[in-house]
Amino acid sequence: MKEETLDPADWDAMRALGHRMVDEMMDYLSTVRDRPAWQPVPTSARDALRRPLPRHPEGAEQAYEDFVEHVLPYPLGNIHPRFWGWVIGTGTPLGALADMLAAVMNPNVGGGDHAAPYVEAQVLDWCKEMLGYPATASGLLVSGGSMANLAGLAVGRQARASGDVRRLGVGAAGGRLTLYGSAEMHSSIQKAVELMGLGSEALRLVPVDAAFEIDVAALEAMIARDRAGGCRPFCVIGNAGTVNTGAIDDLDALATIAAREKLWFHVDGAFGALAALDPELRGQLAGMERADSLAFDLHKWMYIPYEAGCTLVRDPDIHRETFSLTPGYLSHAPRGAAGGELWFNEYGVQLSRGFRALKVWMSIKEHGIERYAALIRQNVEQARYLAELVRGAADLELLAPVPLNIVCLRYVGGTRDEAEREALNRELLMRLHEEGIAVPSTGVINGRYGFRVANTNHRTRREDFDLLVREVRRIGAEIEQEARRTGGVAVK
Amino acid sequence: MKEETLDPADWDAMRALGHRMVDEMMDYLSTVRDRPAWQPVPTSARDALRRPLPRHPEGAEQAYEDFVEHVLPYPLGNIHPRFWGWVIGTGTPLGALADMLAAVMNPNVGGGDHAAPYVEAQVLDWCKEMLGYPATASGLLVSGGSMANLAGLAVGRQARASGDVRRLGVGAAGGRLTLYGSAEMHSSIQKAVELMGLGSEALRLVPVDAAFEIDVAALEAMIARDRAGGCRPFCVIGNAGTVNTGAIDDLDALATIAAREKLWFHVDGAFGALAALDPELRGQLAGMERADSLAFDLHKWMYIPYEAGCTLVRDPDIHRETFSLTPGYLSHAPRGAAGGELWFNEYGVQLSRGFRALKVWMSIKEHGIERYAALIRQNVEQARYLAELVRGAADLELLAPVPLNIVCLRYVGGTRDEAEREALNRELLMRLHEEGIAVPSTGVINGRYGFRVANTNHRTRREDFDLLVREVRRIGAEIEQEARRTGGVAVK
Repeated sequence: MKEETLDPADWDAMRALGHRMVDEMMDYLSTVRDRPAWQPVPTSARDALRRPLPRHPEGAEQAYEDFVEHVLPYPLGNIHPRFWGWVIGTGTPLGALADMLAAVMNPNVGGGDHAAPYVEAQVLDWCKEMLGYPATASGLLVSGGSMANLAGLAVGRQARASGDVRRLGVGAAGGRLTLYGSAEMHSSIQKAVELMGLGSEALRLVPVDAAFEIDVAALEAMIARDRAGGCRPFCVIGNAGTVNTGAIDDLDALATIAAREKLWFHVDGAFGALAALDPELRGQLAGMERADSLAFDLHKWMYIPYEAGCTLVRDPDIHRETFSLTPGYLSHAPRGAAGGELWFNEYGVQLSRGFRALKVWMSIKEHGIERYAALIRQNVEQARYLAELVRGAADLELLAPVPLNIVCLRYVGGTRDEAEREALNRELLMRLHEEGIAVPSTGVINGRYGFRVANTNHRTRREDFDLLVREVRRIGAEIEQEARRTGGVAVK
Repeated sequence: MKEETLDPADWDAMRALGHRMVDEMMDYLSTVRDRPAWQPVPTSARDALRRPLPRHPEGAEQAYEDFVEHVLPYPLGNIHPRFWGWVIGTGTPLGALADMLAAVMNPNVGGGDHAAPYVEAQVLDWCKEMLGYPATASGLLVSGGSMANLAGLAVGRQARASGDVRRLGVGAAGGRLTLYGSAEMHSSIQKAVELMGLGSEALRLVPVDAAFEIDVAALEAMIARDRAGGCRPFCVIGNAGTVNTGAIDDLDALATIAAREKLWFHVDGAFGALAALDPELRGQLAGMERADSLAFDLHKWMYIPYEAGCTLVRDPDIHRETFSLTPGYLSHAPRGAAGGELWFNEYGVQLSRGFRALKVWMSIKEHGIERYAALIRQNVEQARYLAELVRGAADLELLAPVPLNIVCLRYVGGTRDEAEREALNRELLMRLHEEGIAVPSTGVINGRYGFRVANTNHRTRREDFDLLVREVRRIGAEIEQEARRTGGVAVK
């Protein structure tokens, strides 16, 4: 019987296809500014993406052509200079090429003696240095902030819950395990708490002040009340850049409270941690280096393509103790492919792990860290520039302070009540997308509905914000005019 | 102030670099058979991967050249035709190119209205069809089997633990939550159980029979005993291909017990589920289609590059109910970029999610599913061929049945006791790696130490197993000869 392989019968054809892809992808990226920031997926493309399971080979060229026709024209938009929705990074050409290199080598970076784990260790060392975190810490690249937070909290539970949590579970902790963070915390923290079996009620939401930073006195009172009530507080979470407004908690104060109360101190720095690259912004993050665990993303404010998150843990032993599980078939060896010292699968959930470190390693080498610092600085200055534009426009309103790179604003125009304003801004945001102008996302601040511009975009220029403000005012006025004609804002 | 970007100043240079990468990667892949299956990472490369954080740009070309010099020559080896360690897939050229395309578009596939979620939905539909799972099921692409199992078990906990687990945690379930699977279960199940706060003691290990399949009567007795003791059984786990030997539990019997006992039925089919593609093998998996949740990998026996795992869940509502959490800033919209029906981040841990669906979609189109079925069939037949070679060699011993694609064997030669055999095979396995011949991994079956050949490799030919057997016998005899000279097997 003839043996088959999935390798191409014609390597030259595959090579030619690769060259075509490189050309067309470079065209695509270098002309991104000329296209709309977003456009809807038409029915034709949706239909093309609902086909029966292919039985027989259609070939690599056809697969690529289907991609070019039905997928490539309809991106989310975050590679576009006027995309500022949620918190989504931009990616870079070399980052994309690096993902191809990683997939060619296709290593499992769970462990073993090969180059990839050394690359990841190098990236982790660089991350520690970049963020001023102890060089002796352990770390792990993960899929993103959700997993990074989950990992940090799991290590915190292992470290601070009494008893053998891994063997006996959280029910045996001798009292409700509780943890604390501000009401502005990211939803991934709650998701992690639920997954860990602690129950979302265990996550105490501490009020924030006018700057959306955690109320430290309220935190202390909540911990004391829980202790008096028989709970077992085990963790405090600090925000290095909240998702709604970019607020940074007083991390130094939180670190001090955590130390005094013998609690684990986890910092969620999904995007904000990277502000530490800028000497001026770094001061706002004082105390982050005292975290027991620190979660952040490289696919946000380091502009690395998805997926690349990171968890750092101050105490490598407790980190490994949380996750290590090595059955016979995974046993390490003194020599050979099962040798090596770097077994990352003992430091996280994933056993098999891809080579996401490569794109980070190559990108940092490509640009050098000072260039990233300058870009982060630029994004913050651009956000301040936008805030000034909003302050200067009578029909616009700034909804929150702008401590970092996030601006929450709304169009008020001639509206008089909140319901009207919400309807107006809902419609306005959708039209901004639909007209391909820009992609902010929803921002609801103290019950006021508006939109949120989160700038982790290395392609954005100040002129893009000039355009945004101009278009928001134009569309806002148009909707108001329509409303006057029809007797209300029609949200379709 | 001049605004910067990470985009290249010279797009033509980046384009030329991309072309060079494509050429060199195709050379690398098409010549993989000519290189050793594995070689150690030399000190020079390790040193090059321990450099200070780059402050200033080194440039994209330099970053690539460092990769070519220090990383590329030292892969784990799983792209090589004679790599059969652990269970690690091979990858394909188009799969690697697709990862570049995905990273160019760089979407967040958490949700929204853009092409990528439709591609993922298409891939999930194809997966259901491939495995004979209900078309109405929900699903999610994840990083791999560990996350796929975690997701399935989390949904099972949500569905079958009484009370509001998300809000109150597992401590409020009114009795110890217990779950059941064979002693041959994968370690990721235990990891998931620990992370979920249930405690590893909650995971009851059911004995296996001589074929390493779960003892169904023992399972029933354990459930009854736990119920009598006040525990709350909530889940049964079936193996579709155990990691040690490829054993397939009687999934139909497990489904029936689960239904009768009102337990969640999760199937871990990390690699074995894909055997369903072959009409003959499919019969062995009967009952898999009755699973409430089904976990499997596409980066193993579908030869997709890392990372690509999948969870399917029979009941989409309970799946969403387990993970959905949509704060204001993530709110969906009727139109615009925040529109669309496919919000995958409500079905799993990850909020931000990369475009791993693309490589799967393009690969299935490239080859058609019948080609994958043929390759899987080929891998099984090759494993049987190896088993025959082992049976035919007086100095080799087969350690377990070969129901699928895994062969556990050892060299016995003239050894007389178990300690001697273990030392001999440990040394033998490391030399197989070090001499670059082949990469099996450790297999310990009923206390007998040997090595494990897990064949999920589309580049393997029968002649590779001829060579393996020849070389195992040669090296085994050499080690024995050395041992006779020195009075024992020296494990260095």
